[in-house]
Amino acid sequence: MSNVPHVRSFPELLQLAEEVGPYICVLKTHIDIIVDFDDDLIVQLTEIATRYNFQLFEDRKFADIGNTVVHQYRDGIYKIASWSHFTNAHPIPGPGIVDGLRQVGKPLGRGLLLLAQMSSQGALTSPEYAAQAVQMAKANKDFVFGFISQDCLVPEDPSLIYMTPGVQLNAGTDALGQQYNTPDLVIRERKCDIIIVGRGVYKAPDCAAAAKEYMAAGWEAYKKRISQ
Amino acid sequence: MSNVPHVRSFPELLQLAEEVGPYICVLKTHIDIIVDFDDDLIVQLTEIATRYNFQLFEDRKFADIGNTVVHQYRDGIYKIASWSHFTNAHPIPGPGIVDGLRQVGKPLGRGLLLLAQMSSQGALTSPEYAAQAVQMAKANKDFVFGFISQDCLVPEDPSLIYMTPGVQLNAGTDALGQQYNTPDLVIRERKCDIIIVGRGVYKAPDCAAAAKEYMAAGWEAYKKRISQ
Repeated sequence: MSNVPHVRSFPELLQLAEEVGPYICVLKTHIDIIVDFDDDLIVQLTEIATRYNFQLFEDRKFADIGNTVVHQYRDGIYKIASWSHFTNAHPIPGPGIVDGLRQVGKPLGRGLLLLAQMSSQGALTSPEYAAQAVQMAKANKDFVFGFISQDCLVPEDPSLIYMTPGVQLNAGTDALGQQYNTPDLVIRERKCDIIIVGRGVYKAPDCAAAAKEYMAAGWEAYKKRISQ
Repeated sequence: MSNVPHVRSFPELLQLAEEVGPYICVLKTHIDIIVDFDDDLIVQLTEIATRYNFQLFEDRKFADIGNTVVHQYRDGIYKIASWSHFTNAHPIPGPGIVDGLRQVGKPLGRGLLLLAQMSSQGALTSPEYAAQAVQMAKANKDFVFGFISQDCLVPEDPSLIYMTPGVQLNAGTDALGQQYNTPDLVIRERKCDIIIVGRGVYKAPDCAAAAKEYMAAGWEAYKKRISQ
């Protein structure tokens, strides 16, 4: 169970992390939209993550050549590799992107998800594209541990993890092409492992209650799946 | 003629901009790898760009859904839309990414390049993928003005611009899968418009001399092309 804050300020992000912390396994961040970011945010976020035992996942969607992502992952203001337990990358630039990120992340014990499928309308992630992402993951299992995807792509290998965005309790779309599926469809039918819930939680009047509700819905769907 | 600094500090970036300024039409930045970024960097960079009459191009490679890129482009520490004359995006999430970026950039007079092809080894930008990028550009010509590509993809439409990375005076590859072509191949043979030179300039002992040399090589290739 995960979570994507589009919250845009330091105190809001910390407050959300405190509220949903007990009900999530991963907090998915977009650190580059926080207007008042400073290093202390990372210190406090890490403390909350440790206390509630969830992982931090900077949803950076790296998408550049190997030599560039080395710096984007390690350096700059955000120093993503220093605090984000895992991150993700588009396979589009070819295997050099995995090599570049591994060079930085592996010595720190980090891991990588490849974006094999996207939930947005008209996404160019064709079945051939997803198959190439799978090949890239299989060739790099010392660092790549799974996918951002809409389906379980390698059912014969339970060591690969599937995290699925675009989840709400009611299916639908937003004004900018995002498409939503339910926890039941994602976990029970499509056999993914982790639902990524964004607006369903952080726009709820009571974020903690919403996170708890999604946690329960995901767990119910999983129980149904294994008793099918 | 363009330029990609992988320089990692504020004074280095400004110094490079001063040195190569007279010889470039675009300065391509990776603002998220600057370790000591602050707003004053943007003020000074903008002043240099105005003085030498070049454009700023943050090579952000946006690659998320529409609702997320709105915030990544407009907000956060970097406020990219406020200073970068144009930026680029992967078409992979579908047309929502263009809609999201346009919502922020168009009122500011900004433009967008789509990444149709990449120069790195094993890139998944197939001919079908590039064709879909072309369709997306054609459908959004009020905001998309061209491509990051290795070829001139729509020769019948001279209003679209092609900027080509992976250019050095000597062809070759790096350790992380980047592949280099010469200015002559890119401008004369493949009919692209702008060469993007990174390490060929910023790793040269004399950056200004190198930039001048690439400017001359690009111009020679262009003269040969139009007299072919």
